[in-house]
Amino acid sequence: MSSSHSDIEKVVSAIIEKVKPRREDYERLRQVYDTVSQLLTECLGPLNREFVISLQGSVAKDTFIRGEVDIDVFVLFNPQQVDETWFGSEFVNIVTECFKRRNYEVRLEYATHPYVTAVVDGVEVNVVPAFRVENPKKIISAVDRTPFHTEYVVKKLSPEQRDHVRVLKLFLKAWNIYGAEVAVQGFSGYVTELLVIAYGSFDRVLKAATKWRPYRTCIDIEGHYPDERRCIERFRDSVLVVVDPIDPDRNAAAAVSIKSFALFKLLSYLFTIKPSLEFFDKPRTIVPSTWSRDIHDRLRAIGSCLIHLVFKVRKPIPDAVWGQLRRVERVLLNELKSLRLSVLAIDSWVDKSLSRAIVAIEIADCDKEFEVHKGPIALDLDNALRFLIKNANALAGPWLGYDGRLYCIRKRKYSAYEAVERIAKKLASLSVLELERVESDIPTIANHDFVEWLYGFVFRKQFERIARIMEST
Amino acid sequence: MSSSHSDIEKVVSAIIEKVKPRREDYERLRQVYDTVSQLLTECLGPLNREFVISLQGSVAKDTFIRGEVDIDVFVLFNPQQVDETWFGSEFVNIVTECFKRRNYEVRLEYATHPYVTAVVDGVEVNVVPAFRVENPKKIISAVDRTPFHTEYVVKKLSPEQRDHVRVLKLFLKAWNIYGAEVAVQGFSGYVTELLVIAYGSFDRVLKAATKWRPYRTCIDIEGHYPDERRCIERFRDSVLVVVDPIDPDRNAAAAVSIKSFALFKLLSYLFTIKPSLEFFDKPRTIVPSTWSRDIHDRLRAIGSCLIHLVFKVRKPIPDAVWGQLRRVERVLLNELKSLRLSVLAIDSWVDKSLSRAIVAIEIADCDKEFEVHKGPIALDLDNALRFLIKNANALAGPWLGYDGRLYCIRKRKYSAYEAVERIAKKLASLSVLELERVESDIPTIANHDFVEWLYGFVFRKQFERIARIMEST
Repeated sequence: MSSSHSDIEKVVSAIIEKVKPRREDYERLRQVYDTVSQLLTECLGPLNREFVISLQGSVAKDTFIRGEVDIDVFVLFNPQQVDETWFGSEFVNIVTECFKRRNYEVRLEYATHPYVTAVVDGVEVNVVPAFRVENPKKIISAVDRTPFHTEYVVKKLSPEQRDHVRVLKLFLKAWNIYGAEVAVQGFSGYVTELLVIAYGSFDRVLKAATKWRPYRTCIDIEGHYPDERRCIERFRDSVLVVVDPIDPDRNAAAAVSIKSFALFKLLSYLFTIKPSLEFFDKPRTIVPSTWSRDIHDRLRAIGSCLIHLVFKVRKPIPDAVWGQLRRVERVLLNELKSLRLSVLAIDSWVDKSLSRAIVAIEIADCDKEFEVHKGPIALDLDNALRFLIKNANALAGPWLGYDGRLYCIRKRKYSAYEAVERIAKKLASLSVLELERVESDIPTIANHDFVEWLYGFVFRKQFERIARIMEST
Repeated sequence: MSSSHSDIEKVVSAIIEKVKPRREDYERLRQVYDTVSQLLTECLGPLNREFVISLQGSVAKDTFIRGEVDIDVFVLFNPQQVDETWFGSEFVNIVTECFKRRNYEVRLEYATHPYVTAVVDGVEVNVVPAFRVENPKKIISAVDRTPFHTEYVVKKLSPEQRDHVRVLKLFLKAWNIYGAEVAVQGFSGYVTELLVIAYGSFDRVLKAATKWRPYRTCIDIEGHYPDERRCIERFRDSVLVVVDPIDPDRNAAAAVSIKSFALFKLLSYLFTIKPSLEFFDKPRTIVPSTWSRDIHDRLRAIGSCLIHLVFKVRKPIPDAVWGQLRRVERVLLNELKSLRLSVLAIDSWVDKSLSRAIVAIEIADCDKEFEVHKGPIALDLDNALRFLIKNANALAGPWLGYDGRLYCIRKRKYSAYEAVERIAKKLASLSVLELERVESDIPTIANHDFVEWLYGFVFRKQFERIARIMEST
């Protein structure tokens, strides 16, 4: 079950061939940066404030994937001269106007504070205001750390390793665990870079990952902590700890969820056993014309059903929307469980324009009016008594099962749909989402992207290609 | 939630009124015993072997329930003169002939060795051959202990306590946990007597039982063991230990199953909270004329089904038949579980003439062709890989669930019926049972007793009356 080193090398070389930028890519990016830099100098000059224009992000670090790039241009100010509110009240307006005057497409975006995105020569350029500080201990806003990150990564990564970062990024992207945003809860670009710095190469990162243990692994490149135990204690709630080399109090991998962690670990294991180019393909769900019938047949096969919460998005801030959607999922899971309804799958979809969101739930045994209800063990006398009294009118039982527990068959309090509707009504304080309706079956939404997503949600063939590759192991 | 002492006393007095034999009962039993004793003396005298005729059992101990009595007449031989094979080859024939000549109904029965049961004046009389030994350490056959048991109980029980034994016996009988036979696996008459000796009265037995812990309780009246721990160590596999006062190496309660134990403990608790005459009523299942439709409706309510193994009984020995039926149940439970079929209930029925036996199984979700299959957690890499490969062709998935486990929806290997049929075929070495057929639905058996049993099996309303009594608590 072990692959030879040359198998891995072959795959990695092929992927490098695909992700490594060409000379013309660099030239084009350089031109875009020069254009933006010049424009900003012109527009910001008259303000009479010190600033330094600086290239940041994956272009500065040369770890971007060919064809998948935006440029981060930081404008670093003297914190003595401006403050963060000034970024929002003045800077973004000046920059927006500046780009608009030259007929560039431009929009306002929000991270820790607002910034401007312009499209220049087909390339997205993020113009981010930040403070210029002496060292990482003195940062004012979170983005002020970025120049130090860039400096560190540039210093540490060899040219070969930069290609390995690109390979790792593509691997993560293919499985939708690239990025620290709430929608993904995966591995940021910076974490990807740190992993290659820590382990040396793409394949060594994957080999190491197969040994990671959730809440028990600390990657501390600069040795800021005396030992792993002390490091883990400091970041108790983190699934994975990658100590930020320029700020030992920060876990660069704090966004990684247990699900992303488990998926990456499993994929790493599968890849090291059977390296294959297919690990790097983003699966496209091909929705057959019979999709609606397929979904119904699939649900009927085990007697489950689909229920959807359809929301209008009030504020198109991705992290806020996804944060609330995940919260809705958690609440639904817990409340449905306490009503003894078994959730087979739950996930959320948001349309591209960020105007509508849907939480989809698949519930098992929806068609049943009655349920087998498992009670306490008979030896737990108080609870056994309560169970007997409460279920005196059950359809069958209460009876003492061969496992020593009490059971009965009783009417369900709520149907699956009723239960979801009740829980949905209780979900009041959703600031960025507004519940429009609860729909069962396939919701009446004319959106091909949603249908594609729903088809994937119902069939959940996430590992199909990989399983087929592994079969020949 | 606590009952007053007088509530319990009232119920106990009423039950004593019901179970205490009247003068005429004693007279009649004495007459029957005299008749049998005289007859045996006549028939066995010519053999020229020493013997002593001795009254044993609940009549000798005066702990029998009025109207529910058989008489145990022991014929004690000198072990120097006869051996156990002689009991089977000579004794039973002579006694059988003896009774037959006088036109008494008579039949041969088997316990540890054969004995004869005759019906005299409407009373069943068991004529049991045994050896007369000096003390319990010298017994040759298991029944040789009986005279020592009788002697001990007679010496220890006060007249009031004998009535409490009767009350306890009726309580146990009402819930079908009276008797050490395999069909019951409950509390023998002797254990019932020892419990009243140990705790003093019916209600004190019940109060004590609410504190019993399975595999952790030792009742050692004569203090044969230095402490409870040592006693429990000696009888490691016993759910409940009642040390036989006349043989410290014997657990008189060895037959008590965990289910009987749990049921008795729970009932004891319920009775002490709410003493009621209804605890002493054996529930009669009233089968409505709509029984067949009721059963179908009940099964349809949760999508379960009934499957039956119908056996011909080869040898009508109750303990052997029940022993094998319970083994069949265990095997079915385990094998169906390993095929991921969920057994809701399993039990066996034997007809009164001991010629036919049926194991009935209720299986959940019989109608489903597909099942949700729960795999390993994704972090368990080897097993996760195996799961992915094995289920590459699943209807849905494999997918990574929100609980970190892999899942898929796949076709069932066998339908419930096919699975039971396969397991039944493998159950080869059943010496006293012969599998006739496997039937689904309601088997084609014209037997009212079976229908009554099946109706009870499907609705399992064992605690119905009690739950209603407890409701007003």
